Amino acid sequence: MADYPRRLFLQSLAMLALTPPVTAISAAAQPSETAAWLEAYRQPASRLIGAALAGHAAWRRLADLTDTVGNRLSGSERLDRAIAWAVANLKKDGLENVHTEPVMVPHWVRGHEEAAIVAPAPHHLAMLGLGGSIATPPAGLEAEAIVVRNFGELDARAGQVDGRIVVFNEPYEGYGQTVQYRVDGASRAARHGAVAVLVRSVGLAGLRTPHTGYLTYAADAPKIPAAAIAAEDADRLQRMQDRGEHLVVQLKMEARMLPDVPSANVVAELRGRERPEEIVVVSGHLDSWDVGDGASDDGGGCIVTWEALRLMNELGLRPRRTVRLVLWTNEENGTRGGLAYREQHRQELAHHVLMLESDSGVFAPRGVGFTGSDRSRRVVQEIASLLRGIGADEVGIRGGGADVDPSADAAGIPTMSLDVDDSRYFLIHHTEADTIDKIDPSDMARCVAVVAVMAYVVADMPGRLER
Amino acid sequence: MADYPRRLFLQSLAMLALTPPVTAISAAAQPSETAAWLEAYRQPASRLIGAALAGHAAWRRLADLTDTVGNRLSGSERLDRAIAWAVANLKKDGLENVHTEPVMVPHWVRGHEEAAIVAPAPHHLAMLGLGGSIATPPAGLEAEAIVVRNFGELDARAGQVDGRIVVFNEPYEGYGQTVQYRVDGASRAARHGAVAVLVRSVGLAGLRTPHTGYLTYAADAPKIPAAAIAAEDADRLQRMQDRGEHLVVQLKMEARMLPDVPSANVVAELRGRERPEEIVVVSGHLDSWDVGDGASDDGGGCIVTWEALRLMNELGLRPRRTVRLVLWTNEENGTRGGLAYREQHRQELAHHVLMLESDSGVFAPRGVGFTGSDRSRRVVQEIASLLRGIGADEVGIRGGGADVDPSADAAGIPTMSLDVDDSRYFLIHHTEADTIDKIDPSDMARCVAVVAVMAYVVADMPGRLER
Repeated sequence: MADYPRRLFLQSLAMLALTPPVTAISAAAQPSETAAWLEAYRQPASRLIGAALAGHAAWRRLADLTDTVGNRLSGSERLDRAIAWAVANLKKDGLENVHTEPVMVPHWVRGHEEAAIVAPAPHHLAMLGLGGSIATPPAGLEAEAIVVRNFGELDARAGQVDGRIVVFNEPYEGYGQTVQYRVDGASRAARHGAVAVLVRSVGLAGLRTPHTGYLTYAADAPKIPAAAIAAEDADRLQRMQDRGEHLVVQLKMEARMLPDVPSANVVAELRGRERPEEIVVVSGHLDSWDVGDGASDDGGGCIVTWEALRLMNELGLRPRRTVRLVLWTNEENGTRGGLAYREQHRQELAHHVLMLESDSGVFAPRGVGFTGSDRSRRVVQEIASLLRGIGADEVGIRGGGADVDPSADAAGIPTMSLDVDDSRYFLIHHTEADTIDKIDPSDMARCVAVVAVMAYVVADMPGRLER
Repeated sequence: MADYPRRLFLQSLAMLALTPPVTAISAAAQPSETAAWLEAYRQPASRLIGAALAGHAAWRRLADLTDTVGNRLSGSERLDRAIAWAVANLKKDGLENVHTEPVMVPHWVRGHEEAAIVAPAPHHLAMLGLGGSIATPPAGLEAEAIVVRNFGELDARAGQVDGRIVVFNEPYEGYGQTVQYRVDGASRAARHGAVAVLVRSVGLAGLRTPHTGYLTYAADAPKIPAAAIAAEDADRLQRMQDRGEHLVVQLKMEARMLPDVPSANVVAELRGRERPEEIVVVSGHLDSWDVGDGASDDGGGCIVTWEALRLMNELGLRPRRTVRLVLWTNEENGTRGGLAYREQHRQELAHHVLMLESDSGVFAPRGVGFTGSDRSRRVVQEIASLLRGIGADEVGIRGGGADVDPSADAAGIPTMSLDVDDSRYFLIHHTEADTIDKIDPSDMARCVAVVAVMAYVVADMPGRLER
């Protein structure tokens, strides 16, 4: 792919850099010496790392996905194409037991949408309807708007909400803290009679960049249309209201929820050479929102976990246990893939040794997150020491992911996440800017190495990882 | 305006930061001691600086402009409103000789526009038509596309261009170096038979952010439609072509050039107390592109130069010579305001002492740029020493601006620019993201101080600045 990935990345990095490059620290929490049992894994680990870092195969495969398919919302023809593309290429790679597992998924369609400030002065609003939102009336709706910073202010001003459009302008303070306004804002406002809501985008302030994502309608509140607006537009509305100006906003959305449609999780394996019934799952979700390319969320996660299997296979490193790749469907607006896996594999969940999900981007890896017993954590820390040379030997306090958690919770399976420098993730998350140029091919190659080494050693080591 | 400007700025800064904060260095080029004649200006300078930095009046006024008017393309009703708003508020401020000076300006209208990749796989393109472009046929046009990195590659592949859409994918290397593809690309491609051009946006790679700007049609080439596309989209097309894929692109633009319409430069003065016929001009351009708010390009330049006069007036600092504020019309697509001023004021150009334009944003000020004789430069450097305390005492090698240069060139008038840390300027320049939240109110206040001190001392000092 010629010389452009690195150059592009350097441009992006210069623009997007939030923090200095992260140098992973192997701190006191890490074992000071390599455990003796690991000696046998030094050579396979270095072969996997060397193969992962030898080129930009993962990045090129992700470019192939995002360029030939693009984004992949549940129910879309694009997701169907992505599934077919994955199956064909997994087979071409020579992986085993390649198949799809059927899942019915929601089918939400955005349609045309637009929003504008009408008074005190006309301005268009940079917006994206929230996934799952209902439509406005066909001609759109126009109403007075009221800006509130948080739910406390909404409740305090409840008497002024009836018939109005509520604008939630909570500044982004981290995804976990702020996402409640996107998820619950519509129903919270509807209970006070609001006719629609606009939510300041849940993400770092960008370049007039709205971020979509799902909402949940509560059973006890009227359903009203809901959209995200760019931080700049939320600030403008706040300034206008602070000046005492009378706000009028127009919103038009054609969004609609159609009947559920068939989709599928994609599965491929490297069957274990001694205990094939024991399973280490590595995974990412193949679906995405319907904007941008879903490169970081979560095309990258699919490709780095897939590459881990491909490299083991290519190097003839067949572990004792089975390593299973799952490319989930419908993480973004239903988690139906993860829920279906729990039901379809209920009989074998007891034999699941570990479930890893990569869904925070494939930027510079720090290591892994892990949820499991203290003894298992120590083993994982020992394995992580094999990744010290690529600066990715941290073991964070929490593993898992939206798709693996249902199965893991049901059966007490240890979980792992790929942990990366995610400082740029929430700048592009669920936006038109989630494209491959934001990802450095060498960072992505190191992510492959982390997953490959972790999965290989856990699948191969003599004793099974304790629950 | 409550507490939000700073918070927002910090968010923006974190996201956008290209370089560490600039600390202006008073280097060897600066006089080591303050010149004796300057002693008389210490007190007025410190009063101007103190008044400028006492609050966020400039930022608030810019917010008023961008919120009540928004962007201001020549020929638009919004620019007319901005002119009326400026005249009313200049009078309210008690400035003198407030009036408009008529200028006929081009009237280009964007209309609806869209673009998409049709093959090898469907993708929409994030695009903005270039200012001055003609429309496509009403149904749009569809053609094979060819990507070239530069004019050399265009000429080398000239035989493949006929009937195609040419995509210029020259990575941004600085505005001066790269803008030629936007300005000249259409005619260069049309000479080889291209039916349209798409130009990689001239600016730092953003978040799927296209940058508009003017183009020039050469007299000897067919006029073809031209648009900017986001860096991400240019890269995608490049990748597709590099894979050997066959590219087909659709483009639809309704852009049209209407007959010229009346507009105006806005003028206000603080008349000189001793030599009112001698004039120091400070200026910014009130027009902008039709996307974003034109906050940094160039609402900020208008407001900081205006504030300089307002503060002198408020503090009773009436200089020996006249300080004249000009808010130019039509900088972006014609420079008709600057050209008209040269004609309308030809008789008094000989009495113009200095012409300053602020048109690089109102970020952290470094000082001024200056074009003039070596002796004048030394005087300017002496004056700049009064700005050392706010870190803005640099004197760069070039002054001027698109609007002041025609008059200055005609009459040999020294020119000055406000020089700022412009590392973020070309991230938002000519985009939907050129909004006020990108500007720190305290930086902007320091910009006011730089212009006020420079203009006051040059207008008041006993000897006239040498030509």
